[in-house]
Amino acid sequence: MRTWEDFTTIEDVGAATKQVLDSLESRCSGCEFELWEDRWKAQQPQCKFGLEGVCCSLCGMGPCRITPKAPRGICGAEAAGIVGRNVMRMVASGTASHSDHGRHICHVMHSASPDGPYRITDEKKLLALAAEWEVETEGCDIYDIAHEVALVGLDDYGKPFGTARYLTRATKERQELWDREGIAPRAIDREIATCMHMTHMGNSTKPEALLRQAMRTGMADGWVGSMMATDFTDILFGTPIERITEGNLGCIEIDKVNIVVHGHDPAMSEMIAVAADQKDILEYARSKGAAGINITGICCTANEVTMRHGIRISASFLQQEHVILTGAVEAMVVDVQCVFPSITPISKCFHTKFITTSEICQIPGAIHVQIDDEKALDQAREIVRMACDAFAERDPNKVFIPAIKHHGTVGFSLETILKKLDGVTNSFVDERQTYKPLIDCIKSGVLRGAVAMAGCNNPKIPTAYGHVEIMKECIKNDIIVIASGCAAQSALKAGLLSKEAKELAGAGLRRVCDLADIPPILHMGACVDISRMMLLANRIAMDWGIDVPQVPVVACAAEWMSEKAVAIGHYVISTGIDTFLGVSPPVSGSPEMYKLLTEDVKNICGATFTIETDPDKLVKAIVNRVEEKRVELGL
Amino acid sequence: MRTWEDFTTIEDVGAATKQVLDSLESRCSGCEFELWEDRWKAQQPQCKFGLEGVCCSLCGMGPCRITPKAPRGICGAEAAGIVGRNVMRMVASGTASHSDHGRHICHVMHSASPDGPYRITDEKKLLALAAEWEVETEGCDIYDIAHEVALVGLDDYGKPFGTARYLTRATKERQELWDREGIAPRAIDREIATCMHMTHMGNSTKPEALLRQAMRTGMADGWVGSMMATDFTDILFGTPIERITEGNLGCIEIDKVNIVVHGHDPAMSEMIAVAADQKDILEYARSKGAAGINITGICCTANEVTMRHGIRISASFLQQEHVILTGAVEAMVVDVQCVFPSITPISKCFHTKFITTSEICQIPGAIHVQIDDEKALDQAREIVRMACDAFAERDPNKVFIPAIKHHGTVGFSLETILKKLDGVTNSFVDERQTYKPLIDCIKSGVLRGAVAMAGCNNPKIPTAYGHVEIMKECIKNDIIVIASGCAAQSALKAGLLSKEAKELAGAGLRRVCDLADIPPILHMGACVDISRMMLLANRIAMDWGIDVPQVPVVACAAEWMSEKAVAIGHYVISTGIDTFLGVSPPVSGSPEMYKLLTEDVKNICGATFTIETDPDKLVKAIVNRVEEKRVELGL
Repeated sequence: MRTWEDFTTIEDVGAATKQVLDSLESRCSGCEFELWEDRWKAQQPQCKFGLEGVCCSLCGMGPCRITPKAPRGICGAEAAGIVGRNVMRMVASGTASHSDHGRHICHVMHSASPDGPYRITDEKKLLALAAEWEVETEGCDIYDIAHEVALVGLDDYGKPFGTARYLTRATKERQELWDREGIAPRAIDREIATCMHMTHMGNSTKPEALLRQAMRTGMADGWVGSMMATDFTDILFGTPIERITEGNLGCIEIDKVNIVVHGHDPAMSEMIAVAADQKDILEYARSKGAAGINITGICCTANEVTMRHGIRISASFLQQEHVILTGAVEAMVVDVQCVFPSITPISKCFHTKFITTSEICQIPGAIHVQIDDEKALDQAREIVRMACDAFAERDPNKVFIPAIKHHGTVGFSLETILKKLDGVTNSFVDERQTYKPLIDCIKSGVLRGAVAMAGCNNPKIPTAYGHVEIMKECIKNDIIVIASGCAAQSALKAGLLSKEAKELAGAGLRRVCDLADIPPILHMGACVDISRMMLLANRIAMDWGIDVPQVPVVACAAEWMSEKAVAIGHYVISTGIDTFLGVSPPVSGSPEMYKLLTEDVKNICGATFTIETDPDKLVKAIVNRVEEKRVELGL
Repeated sequence: MRTWEDFTTIEDVGAATKQVLDSLESRCSGCEFELWEDRWKAQQPQCKFGLEGVCCSLCGMGPCRITPKAPRGICGAEAAGIVGRNVMRMVASGTASHSDHGRHICHVMHSASPDGPYRITDEKKLLALAAEWEVETEGCDIYDIAHEVALVGLDDYGKPFGTARYLTRATKERQELWDREGIAPRAIDREIATCMHMTHMGNSTKPEALLRQAMRTGMADGWVGSMMATDFTDILFGTPIERITEGNLGCIEIDKVNIVVHGHDPAMSEMIAVAADQKDILEYARSKGAAGINITGICCTANEVTMRHGIRISASFLQQEHVILTGAVEAMVVDVQCVFPSITPISKCFHTKFITTSEICQIPGAIHVQIDDEKALDQAREIVRMACDAFAERDPNKVFIPAIKHHGTVGFSLETILKKLDGVTNSFVDERQTYKPLIDCIKSGVLRGAVAMAGCNNPKIPTAYGHVEIMKECIKNDIIVIASGCAAQSALKAGLLSKEAKELAGAGLRRVCDLADIPPILHMGACVDISRMMLLANRIAMDWGIDVPQVPVVACAAEWMSEKAVAIGHYVISTGIDTFLGVSPPVSGSPEMYKLLTEDVKNICGATFTIETDPDKLVKAIVNRVEEKRVELGL
């Protein structure tokens, strides 16, 4: 039996990267490039005004900075208004990012055809959604239904009246609250435009008004754009099921053509996966001297393809440069979001082809292959061939692949979770397809509650330290963890997504892992799949007969970095789930805004943000909050 | 005859404000507040990184700043990418602002009814637009047509496919270019969302990609949102006709209830104007001891109501605090954009009620009356009554109204201009309703060309100095000026909108002013009415048989301040009109982006930006460019 000590520490999680960096000088002495670690140092000290959120550059009179000598901007805006506007723009960008990804998936579904590159995989899920949205299905062709559902989905991006369709999936209490508090989102793009209008010079500076619009916009992310991305991706590429995967730089294979897919929108990477399996392409790879083609992934594109194909995760966000430094990557193919423009100079030191595929993400020096949904498979075949060609150019002297990787189980969609829960019920007497077994575990105290771990890596915290330490402490305290995004990848690299990791859990959670045959940390997918977590919390609440804020569930973004994370935070609290942040958002310059976000917002939505940059203190606060919620429920 | 010397200088333009400030201490010794002049001083020196555009706060790893020591952000973004992203967000906010104002006017038109507060005034314009948009009108009620046209308009905010309807109003050459270069805007809100997605961490840093999306988004402003605001406002409240107005603080009247309307969206101010004319409301004002009700305006709301009702302009953007300091303003009623939050503390030193009316612009300490389109007149009556009540609280010891104001002629819609042009043709032999008489004047050299002056005031330039000096020099050189926004208000305050100002013009322009009975500077309206200027330039080009960049017309934003101005700049150059900026946008930190905007963009759209902060040099560049275009035409 493995013991606590056997499990990977934060040093182990970083060991693969360290080996790559340590061996770099001997392999690439002639190369001139820098890594994020160098740029991070060069950027120190960071601007205090920016860190505190009290720099305003929203008009041409400025920039203005709040200081004791200058407590107001030229227009008269005070710290709270400036902080509130800046945060709102972060939410707007985050929402635009997830939702525009969702929009692309809608367009992909609208282009789906039995002969085209994109086809319908999960007909059951499509039909269920068609029924939910009252799309006629009787006697209709499945592709006609798909196209009609896609149009209805696209309508939620731009309709001039009404609020989002998906909101009816929430508890009655949430729906009423969202209406009452004015945070039920209208069309997604309208909420983004409203943010950009409200934050224009000479508009709102009232903190609560800014917060409410930020919440409504976040809701348009989590409960519309992201949810649509999740649903439509499941319909197109398959709803995730339990799968084994591996993670870390050791997933790069020395004898194969290595293609790393990176970004968030899986439309192109799915096609890359299909193309790399085609016989003629495999033969082409072999003709170049390779033993095969090895697709691995980074960031959420990796999460998407690992859940659906078991494709492995070679790197998370802050390893995107390191993976190229193995010298064995033939092509990095990126779609959107979280792609370092530094990939260009680094890839040029090797034989690596850096290929962008979306007009959203165009980077100087990259090869741009603009995705065309109708021709995506042909484009993917072309890209894979390019990688095969590059294999011949690989310089063996520059290659070093650390032999470090961990396995784990992924694919915990709601469908997978329900299947697991059905597995522990008696099919003759118990209700099926309900969360009651899970609720019973929480009620009995076998599980104390759950924490949703999400978000990025951030140089402000040693990579993965926050995620891993918090997760270990949570499972030790019988709090089950659901994870997505780079948080889930940290867990994978620390071995925590393996079923053996139950040994690190408290006795209660360990028993649950045994009975349900699950790891203590459930990989639920990409950032957009936090929408799955929102539905999970709501369905637990419904099956329990309470509202979401009462459920002993909290969320944590221990190492968040992107504006998407800020949008996520706003919809998670709006859904009634307390959210714990391990990196301070730029709000500390306004005590008023800080109090609003960490205390008073509870009066709007029943949940708050907690900001704590010490991971040890953060996890204590998380465990305490879960226990408080239990006490409030009389458990 | 008045001579050059008799005309107002920049000192005269500022005299009203100076008198108010000089008399302040004796009137308001107990008051504690600061003015923008104080805050401007307190904010010096401004952050160099912000001024140059090389501060990036678009993710939680940052903020990052580009320096010789740190030429890249933590993600690897270089100066060009950072500058380009920051500018794109400015364009996104500016476009969102104009267009969301346009959206509200669409909703107002959708709510119009013969018995409601909002009615159809210009049926002819509505029917023409219905025909343009292929809305059925035969045998239909005018209000049904209005509602249908409003829905078609709203469709251009959120439709999932296709580009904007209004583009067909441009020259064939422009339409082809916009398609070819990928800058024909799709749905307005989608372009805004795309900007916010492209600028998210890890997306585009390619300067040209960023510029093209900024241009497409600007196009969604000028050729969709703003144009719709203009058209629908004309339909609802009347297409502007030639009117006399007055401008400057002297428009405040000591014996009346003074209500100052401020902002940009005229929906509420129109109702205030109606309410203030109602018999019972006038009687209510008299019952409080007032001789009547005096509505005056600030910013573009003032431009809107002055063009349609002759309501006077008491202040421009940088006088919004000063007007309250007269001590004789009972209420300042604001809608959206360019409202200083400092109005709250300043108004509290007097009896002035500060009333916000839009959820977009909510300011701490203001009285908020959220406009409800169905009840707007009742709300306006309530607001006017509030102002009447405040009249009784006015402290005569605090009052000082400078006796300074100038008259001018406003209302030069395309319809007014065509009427003027028809007036100089022979109705028996000449074509009517064409711009040919104007083209003939330019061809013959009587007029050298035209300059569109637009934009704000900015403390970076002595108030109105840039506008006024440039306008005077242009008309002296026989370049006719069309003006909008605060630029037009500067002209008004300098007496340059009066027909007598022709004495300042060169011989050619003076002759045109005589013949057509116009001032040398034509007030075309609010910021959204720059859409009128775009149509004017295109129609001149069409009647001439050339494309827009060939026409000797340029644009100038001598004192721009807002992100709206940045959006405007992008659609003006996209329309093929060279644009001269008197305040540097935050781009100087990237020589690459600077060159792209000031030189290479010409390869995309046939026009460029010129950045020159010295007004004397700026006007020389403008005159030269006009003459260059004449040479290119062989004139």
